[in-house]
Amino acid sequence: MFPEYDVIVVGAGHAGCEAAHAAAMMGSKVLLVTMNMNTIAQMSCNPAMGGVAKGQIVREIDALGGMSGIISDKSAIQFRMLNRSKGPAMWSPRTQNDRMKFSEEWRLALERTPNLDFWQETVKEVLVTDGRTIGVKTSLGLEIKSKSVVLTNGTFLNGKIHIGEKNFGGGRAAETSATGLTEQLINLGFEAGRMKTGTPPRIDGRSLDYSKMEEQPGDETPGKFSYSDTTPLSKQVSCWITYTNDDVHKELQKGFDRSPMFQGRIKGLGPRYCPSIEDKINRFAERDRHQIFVEPEGWNTVEIYVNGFSTSLPEDIQFQALRKIPGFEKAKMFRPGYAIEYDFFPPTQLKMSLETHLIGGLFFAGQINGTTGYEEAACQGLMAGINAHHIAHEKEPLILKRSEAYIGVLIDDLVNKGTQEPYRMFTSRAEYRILLRQDNADLRLTEIGHKIGLATQERYDAFTQKKNAIQQLLKELNTVKVEPETINAGLENIQTSAIREKVTAAHLLRRPQIGMPELRQLSSALQHLLNNYTTEVQEEAEIDIKYESYIEREQKLAEKIGSLEEYRIKPDFDYDRVKALSSEAREKLKRIKPETLGQATRISGVSPSDISVLTIYMGK
Amino acid sequence: MFPEYDVIVVGAGHAGCEAAHAAAMMGSKVLLVTMNMNTIAQMSCNPAMGGVAKGQIVREIDALGGMSGIISDKSAIQFRMLNRSKGPAMWSPRTQNDRMKFSEEWRLALERTPNLDFWQETVKEVLVTDGRTIGVKTSLGLEIKSKSVVLTNGTFLNGKIHIGEKNFGGGRAAETSATGLTEQLINLGFEAGRMKTGTPPRIDGRSLDYSKMEEQPGDETPGKFSYSDTTPLSKQVSCWITYTNDDVHKELQKGFDRSPMFQGRIKGLGPRYCPSIEDKINRFAERDRHQIFVEPEGWNTVEIYVNGFSTSLPEDIQFQALRKIPGFEKAKMFRPGYAIEYDFFPPTQLKMSLETHLIGGLFFAGQINGTTGYEEAACQGLMAGINAHHIAHEKEPLILKRSEAYIGVLIDDLVNKGTQEPYRMFTSRAEYRILLRQDNADLRLTEIGHKIGLATQERYDAFTQKKNAIQQLLKELNTVKVEPETINAGLENIQTSAIREKVTAAHLLRRPQIGMPELRQLSSALQHLLNNYTTEVQEEAEIDIKYESYIEREQKLAEKIGSLEEYRIKPDFDYDRVKALSSEAREKLKRIKPETLGQATRISGVSPSDISVLTIYMGK
Repeated sequence: MFPEYDVIVVGAGHAGCEAAHAAAMMGSKVLLVTMNMNTIAQMSCNPAMGGVAKGQIVREIDALGGMSGIISDKSAIQFRMLNRSKGPAMWSPRTQNDRMKFSEEWRLALERTPNLDFWQETVKEVLVTDGRTIGVKTSLGLEIKSKSVVLTNGTFLNGKIHIGEKNFGGGRAAETSATGLTEQLINLGFEAGRMKTGTPPRIDGRSLDYSKMEEQPGDETPGKFSYSDTTPLSKQVSCWITYTNDDVHKELQKGFDRSPMFQGRIKGLGPRYCPSIEDKINRFAERDRHQIFVEPEGWNTVEIYVNGFSTSLPEDIQFQALRKIPGFEKAKMFRPGYAIEYDFFPPTQLKMSLETHLIGGLFFAGQINGTTGYEEAACQGLMAGINAHHIAHEKEPLILKRSEAYIGVLIDDLVNKGTQEPYRMFTSRAEYRILLRQDNADLRLTEIGHKIGLATQERYDAFTQKKNAIQQLLKELNTVKVEPETINAGLENIQTSAIREKVTAAHLLRRPQIGMPELRQLSSALQHLLNNYTTEVQEEAEIDIKYESYIEREQKLAEKIGSLEEYRIKPDFDYDRVKALSSEAREKLKRIKPETLGQATRISGVSPSDISVLTIYMGK
Repeated sequence: MFPEYDVIVVGAGHAGCEAAHAAAMMGSKVLLVTMNMNTIAQMSCNPAMGGVAKGQIVREIDALGGMSGIISDKSAIQFRMLNRSKGPAMWSPRTQNDRMKFSEEWRLALERTPNLDFWQETVKEVLVTDGRTIGVKTSLGLEIKSKSVVLTNGTFLNGKIHIGEKNFGGGRAAETSATGLTEQLINLGFEAGRMKTGTPPRIDGRSLDYSKMEEQPGDETPGKFSYSDTTPLSKQVSCWITYTNDDVHKELQKGFDRSPMFQGRIKGLGPRYCPSIEDKINRFAERDRHQIFVEPEGWNTVEIYVNGFSTSLPEDIQFQALRKIPGFEKAKMFRPGYAIEYDFFPPTQLKMSLETHLIGGLFFAGQINGTTGYEEAACQGLMAGINAHHIAHEKEPLILKRSEAYIGVLIDDLVNKGTQEPYRMFTSRAEYRILLRQDNADLRLTEIGHKIGLATQERYDAFTQKKNAIQQLLKELNTVKVEPETINAGLENIQTSAIREKVTAAHLLRRPQIGMPELRQLSSALQHLLNNYTTEVQEEAEIDIKYESYIEREQKLAEKIGSLEEYRIKPDFDYDRVKALSSEAREKLKRIKPETLGQATRISGVSPSDISVLTIYMGK
């Protein structure tokens, strides 16, 4: 009934969609198995993509040839570049999205992908022969064969929903959970754990009083995620900000004795940086208010997402507390918030390619690896899809370095450190922040994406053109000199000191008061020069010049540490023979099986002296 | 947490959506409770609305002020007027629809409806005090109060899905069933039964070879359902026709020993006129082929609905058989077809208002009453919504006569005859077919819809204008005379006999060769006259003139039988005191409690002599 596939992807959330798309675009015969074809690419939580560190990930996915950026652009209702006032390493694009349109655009994009088939059913089992996966078995008992399998089960594995004192099985509100698969994987030798996440109640926007809130419109000149030719928004929808207060907190506290979290009914750990409202007022008792971010769910729907008010307190408590928030006095609820517990597999069981150590050809991506967030899931899906294709075609895996991409940081963290609670990306997790900017993701990654056959020729040509233009502009800025008499008046105008002799334009650009807009005002020659370049190219060149020393420093550091990455450790290396290793290091090294000496340095519990021992042993 | 509502509607399919919209538009405070707000108004079966007799119902819903016509127009991808070659009583509008857009448009329409709240949860219980409903209880244990409740549970009550030898609980593919409610209703004294329906596999349109099929495009000048200002389609998508053959049938037969229907695992009776493909080849063994109607699921999706191939045979059999159909040689399946069994409540337990006899204020609408079809469900929802509003406001129920609407026929049939198998509307069920045309639904019903506060003033004004124009045109056509010398040449042209003396235009129109297009060619005076009227008004006048005698005959019959409808029977009438009644009649009359003598005549098992006895007893 089914042909033999190269890659089977289980689950059609952010991870599964990227995985299926990537492998199929690279030429694999792919089957995407989903429990429900009507719920492909649901935004299960808030209707937004990107944000701090996450926006960078979406740009990286896009640069490699993934779809999250394009889909987000097509379904966006608002765009903001966060942290504009900070340095460019912190700039982070973010969109509000139309929830229904996001899902629809993903589905249509997948349907237009060649080599990609669909099957609607629940997967019950991974088929394994001689330590390698050979496909999956479905709830109807169908055996579907493939060379590799990517599991992206999200919150569905033994999903259990909690609202107050009630709980019931479910993978998302109103959707069934997936049972059987965890148990089979444990039987195969995998270690499983339990995590928890949550979501706020949904509100009828018609019942809110926006005059009591603060409007947050989109950017005046909205940007976009994708380096491809998606169009920026011509109109936008606003979000609204309001705050909890003491009355809200008192209402919430009335439900604490019925809270599944506080009463110990929830065992799994939740996302530390995205806590429930009851967690916030409990942990930060000194704070008299918390911000509530009121997000519209689309262009036309009246449904509202109450960001910051995630909760698993009883629904009557949710309701009474909501009504104490300014603007929510007459709020009507559509659906209560809830917490959900689900199975995950500690990601230290993975190779850097996201393939499992235990079963050849079996990949995990997304929440199943203990992460949280659409972007974190999507980029894992992308990498798992790429590497599942590579395995199916006996090619070397693609592994991104920590100095190349947030995606590299994320996977490196997961595999080497594991995670006790849902892992979320932050800029602080990246040691090469000034290299990993949202503006240069294409410069970092499009060549890689093109080489593996994912980023199209069109993308590659645009990237080459941009790269060349930047080089050309940098050269010009470092060559063109300006005379004091021509520009000193202009310098005085923008309150920066005069020059005494000729300097290059690049020299001037290093001053904090001078950016490209100021530079072009200084002389008609400069204006003429800059007119030959797009804003994007000018921005890139400006960052290159302004942050040259920081960039160089990080690049050098990356190269230095990179040398350790060159030393590959054989997968069957016998750590027991290295007697001088600490027992903790030996145990971790045996479990995680680092692929390079560089990776070994990042395993928690492996000390610098352990690394020295290893280096000596390996004769380096 | 909730205010007290006038009307709670349980379920958001075709019936629930119409019920909630109608009651809210009429001024009731309404709560729509649905298991999943993301699946409002699903087209669970084929992506089409209308068709023979069903298209008339959609027009009737629209004329009364319901939404199905508007939503269908907005989401249509193709329009056809079926049976154009037959008499106007048979003309039946039908659209193919974009499945996702249909659902989205309904949801947005409901969100824009004032007085209408939403709640996402499963209803477990109808709250009852002193024989009246006072609201519902949800799975979270919430008690929500209301004056009336409309249950529209579709196929969800103890829904059980069958595919070959496998079966599992579910209300639709990938959706959970609703448990508990049937059991409670039985405890309250209701009688429940079990029915079955089915759906075909869904196919990847990219895998089909359309060159082997027959194209079925939409009408050249597409019409629409709604009398309101929706726009007709400017472009359309085609359907395709192909046929099964002996090879297909042989493949299907290979699965008969694993068929849940033939092996007795399915107890419920299925829709006789929408049988599964295995049923067709079994029951009509002499036929060597069956038509397959290939329906696209929307403007952009590649998903295809294989109308005519509904099946619950094992998925491998479905697949092998499909591939023997011309054009399907390389077909890829997205999801298998399946049968579903669900609980229904024999509709003889209802009043003509769709309120249950047993529990005051409790209404049933849609598949829960043993019907099949979107249109059948939608019109019941509309009537239940209207009457739930009326009960909540202590008004008389609205009951449509058999001579007024297909809706009247449907409810009268259900309540008086009950149904053993899923009830579907046919033109043959209506004894006043020439009165109940698709073209005059507004003339029949908009005044009623407006009077109850559902059809808007705008609709009413348009209706009045149209009605007056028709009267005016009829008057003119019956007055204006044409001379032989002016028109005889024209008559010869269209091969109809010459006239010898002056006749009225109406006189000419009675000839089968002459319609409005021919009439206007006969003289410039006639052309000038007709130019003052819209095509719609001309069509109406033409039907009125051409079918005058038929229309009059049916009208007289309706009036005659209508006189029996005038004799109301008290709800507490004691049939035991009428000794001369046959025991079967007595039993049926006591159960169904007819509201009029007319209704009593239509109860199966009540003979004309029983009616005589009753008439005499009642002193009429």
